[in-house]
Amino acid sequence: MERIPILKLGGVLIVTIQVDMHDRLALALEEDLTAMIARTGARGVLLEISALEIVDSFIGRMLVSIAAVSRVLDAETVVAGMRPAVAITLVELGLELTGIRTALNVERGMALIQARISEEDDGHGSDRDRHED
Amino acid sequence: MERIPILKLGGVLIVTIQVDMHDRLALALEEDLTAMIARTGARGVLLEISALEIVDSFIGRMLVSIAAVSRVLDAETVVAGMRPAVAITLVELGLELTGIRTALNVERGMALIQARISEEDDGHGSDRDRHED
Repeated sequence: MERIPILKLGGVLIVTIQVDMHDRLALALEEDLTAMIARTGARGVLLEISALEIVDSFIGRMLVSIAAVSRVLDAETVVAGMRPAVAITLVELGLELTGIRTALNVERGMALIQARISEEDDGHGSDRDRHED
Repeated sequence: MERIPILKLGGVLIVTIQVDMHDRLALALEEDLTAMIARTGARGVLLEISALEIVDSFIGRMLVSIAAVSRVLDAETVVAGMRPAVAITLVELGLELTGIRTALNVERGMALIQARISEEDDGHGSDRDRHED
């Protein structure tokens, strides 16, 4: 079965989505990501979607689901590289990417995740001021 | 036309190859990479090929060509994540990836590129001891 490669870089797992997602592939990606977070102790997941011309409710649910599972495993999910047209469609359709942070590109996404990691490490988990509004 | 996304991270361009390469796609990737190196001043190109089950002479030539063009633009190319079976086949077929460095995974590939960048920056371009044997 076809699998989407997951790149580990520091404490972050990077996935570039560039093929059409179907049920099994989405499920496999979620499983692979979950297993890899558990194995490597990754603190962030960066999903790069600049190749996607359409983000429909299926893809939207997949992203939300990956983010939710990752959060339980203490990894932050950031979606990077969304095309402007995709962003407009998402808003028009009222599709909400609940619990997902977005970044303009991979570089900013990495910065977002790094900031969150160092923020939590500074606080030693005692006073986690989650700046998620 | 379909395009393979190129992720910029620091001074390195990362490409995950996960679809079957054909003539036009390979050409488009080379053009995109070249343009992006020129635009961003990237010093390294990291090609992640863990999704490839076969590296034939076409893919091999594409990798060599990307590396050659990148080098002219002062960017080092590293191929990361090659499957063991692919490596065996390459050697058996006598396909040489001339001028291409390889790394076990993206993390090591990044380290290789970073080491090369700092090495050159230390030497200020005066005594470039290229450790390429």
